[in-house]
Amino acid sequence: MPILRIEVPLPGSRYEVRVGAGILSSVGEVLAERARPGPALVVTDENVGPLYLKIVLLSLRGAGFSPTAETVPAGEATKSLRFVERLYEVLLDLGADRSTPVLALGGGVVGDLSGFAAGTFLRGVPWFVVPTSLLAQVDASVGGKTGVNLPRGKNLAGAFYQPLGVLADVEALRTLPERHIRAGLAEVVKVGFGLSRERFDEVERDRAALLARDQGALARAVAGAVAEKARIVVEDEREGDRRRVLNLGHTGGHAIEAATGFGPVLHGEAVAVGLVAAGRAAVARGIVSPGVVDRVRRLLAAFGLPASLDDLPVRPSEDALAAALVSDKKRRGARIALVLPTGIGTSVIVEDGTVEEILAAL
Amino acid sequence: MPILRIEVPLPGSRYEVRVGAGILSSVGEVLAERARPGPALVVTDENVGPLYLKIVLLSLRGAGFSPTAETVPAGEATKSLRFVERLYEVLLDLGADRSTPVLALGGGVVGDLSGFAAGTFLRGVPWFVVPTSLLAQVDASVGGKTGVNLPRGKNLAGAFYQPLGVLADVEALRTLPERHIRAGLAEVVKVGFGLSRERFDEVERDRAALLARDQGALARAVAGAVAEKARIVVEDEREGDRRRVLNLGHTGGHAIEAATGFGPVLHGEAVAVGLVAAGRAAVARGIVSPGVVDRVRRLLAAFGLPASLDDLPVRPSEDALAAALVSDKKRRGARIALVLPTGIGTSVIVEDGTVEEILAAL
Repeated sequence: MPILRIEVPLPGSRYEVRVGAGILSSVGEVLAERARPGPALVVTDENVGPLYLKIVLLSLRGAGFSPTAETVPAGEATKSLRFVERLYEVLLDLGADRSTPVLALGGGVVGDLSGFAAGTFLRGVPWFVVPTSLLAQVDASVGGKTGVNLPRGKNLAGAFYQPLGVLADVEALRTLPERHIRAGLAEVVKVGFGLSRERFDEVERDRAALLARDQGALARAVAGAVAEKARIVVEDEREGDRRRVLNLGHTGGHAIEAATGFGPVLHGEAVAVGLVAAGRAAVARGIVSPGVVDRVRRLLAAFGLPASLDDLPVRPSEDALAAALVSDKKRRGARIALVLPTGIGTSVIVEDGTVEEILAAL
Repeated sequence: MPILRIEVPLPGSRYEVRVGAGILSSVGEVLAERARPGPALVVTDENVGPLYLKIVLLSLRGAGFSPTAETVPAGEATKSLRFVERLYEVLLDLGADRSTPVLALGGGVVGDLSGFAAGTFLRGVPWFVVPTSLLAQVDASVGGKTGVNLPRGKNLAGAFYQPLGVLADVEALRTLPERHIRAGLAEVVKVGFGLSRERFDEVERDRAALLARDQGALARAVAGAVAEKARIVVEDEREGDRRRVLNLGHTGGHAIEAATGFGPVLHGEAVAVGLVAAGRAAVARGIVSPGVVDRVRRLLAAFGLPASLDDLPVRPSEDALAAALVSDKKRRGARIALVLPTGIGTSVIVEDGTVEEILAAL
């Protein structure tokens, strides 16, 4: 299978996302194209480390790096300032200077945490991302959003920081639990639904192969979603209007995650329900036809994803959902900016969304 | 006296530095040009708050803002992750969203701390700077360097983050202790020495007026230095080669501060000695004439600034200086990049500097 390469030509930080099967062992070589051999820090977690750390360290050593690994606990609680400080300590221990690369090997938590540490240590050291979950390969490969949770909420502290490069090996998805594969596919559906009819059609066609973890289908889906995302992010690095399209399904989705205490419902599962809710809200406003929402719902169902609150493993209360929506980061004053679909592959942003409107759609 | 305005046209974050006398009371009006009226956080310290907080809050209220003030302890120890977390808490308490501005009212510590908090809260909220020390007006108004100290060193964590605007009122310098005026002038000398013969000549001519705190001379010096700095920073926002010219005198200066435990020697005093040391190192390499260094030394002496280790209030040991140089952030591998003058207003960067070379020059 060929390696798919997507250029992300951001001003001042051009980089490449490589997607392929069995490419993990080339990480040292790829990093050496952008970073000087010397000390390097690999951040991973207790789930991913035992599976893939060895091959990554071997590859880095082969390319002339002297890697140190830091294995953090798996799970959302690790995305905290305490662990950022821990990574600063490790970097100081290994005598890091501004050219010492930090490599993320894992899912979203490892990526967000290590990216924030890399983006703020010495005001920024090189950062390289090796995402090993489908969600991270699709969602975190492009965008430069890094950050940690505060005791009072998720992702409240962070920075926009771009990697030197991203290497997404779909072979690593073989060890990913089934439920996480399905949840990752929700992000793939989102990109098609919000941005590209062509991608949506492709995912629909490939649905059986994707669930069977066919390496070619997975690589196509990841590379396709990354390419669409890159196109948008390049136009708008710091989340102005254009980029907000990527939040399709995320206002409702985020509220579900918050209202269930970030844990029992996976991000992708919450986004799936959020996508249908955004569709319903758009139908209520008369800007999209019900047939479009049905088509999305059918695809999500084919992936075994929830389409309504009743399908979720834990049903959030309406009060908790309302409270979460009121504290939404995307809120500006009393109104919530909403991304609403107008068809498969097209969407608009409305500034006059209300908490009631989203609750009704959910 | 007219208000001097310097545009800083950074890609994606154009802003203006206003320099004048008695302009503090216009801060609300100026902020309202860029930020939506609503809640705002003013960060100040125990020294500056009692002098200028009232007038700033009054001005902000007059422009429709509902400001909350957070007064932090004065001094370097406040520049810590602990106080960043404290500012996050205050922002959450006042229901801040992504459009809530943070305003820095004070010197470098308040600026660096509040800028890091503003740059990382919700991945960045609007930040406005009202520097009240000469050093902060000259040095921190432009550049976007924000950050905090870690237990193991100064400015080890931080981010590049640009303000919405800067308002530098030279009338606020009337209450600044004499020693801090002199130390601030070292940064003014640095900009002329490293970047602009014209600015250097002007500061030389104005030297008596500057020491007498003539408002016109101070405004000219601040605006002149800011304009030169802005020119360089616009060319190079994230400290590549071009911008490193601004580090003239700072390798030696930083080592002096570190070797004396960051306290007894002011930043400007350390930089003054560092400027002469950079000059001496350049003479030793045969790239500048001794007459140039003498001229700089005379100007520093006119400002009552130290020119050698013996002139400092505390003399650092050679061992401590060497240790500080080895852990310099600007180090890349075994060699230290040095900025060396080639004349008044011109300088070069050499990549093959050594610890021994700087120690000899100091």
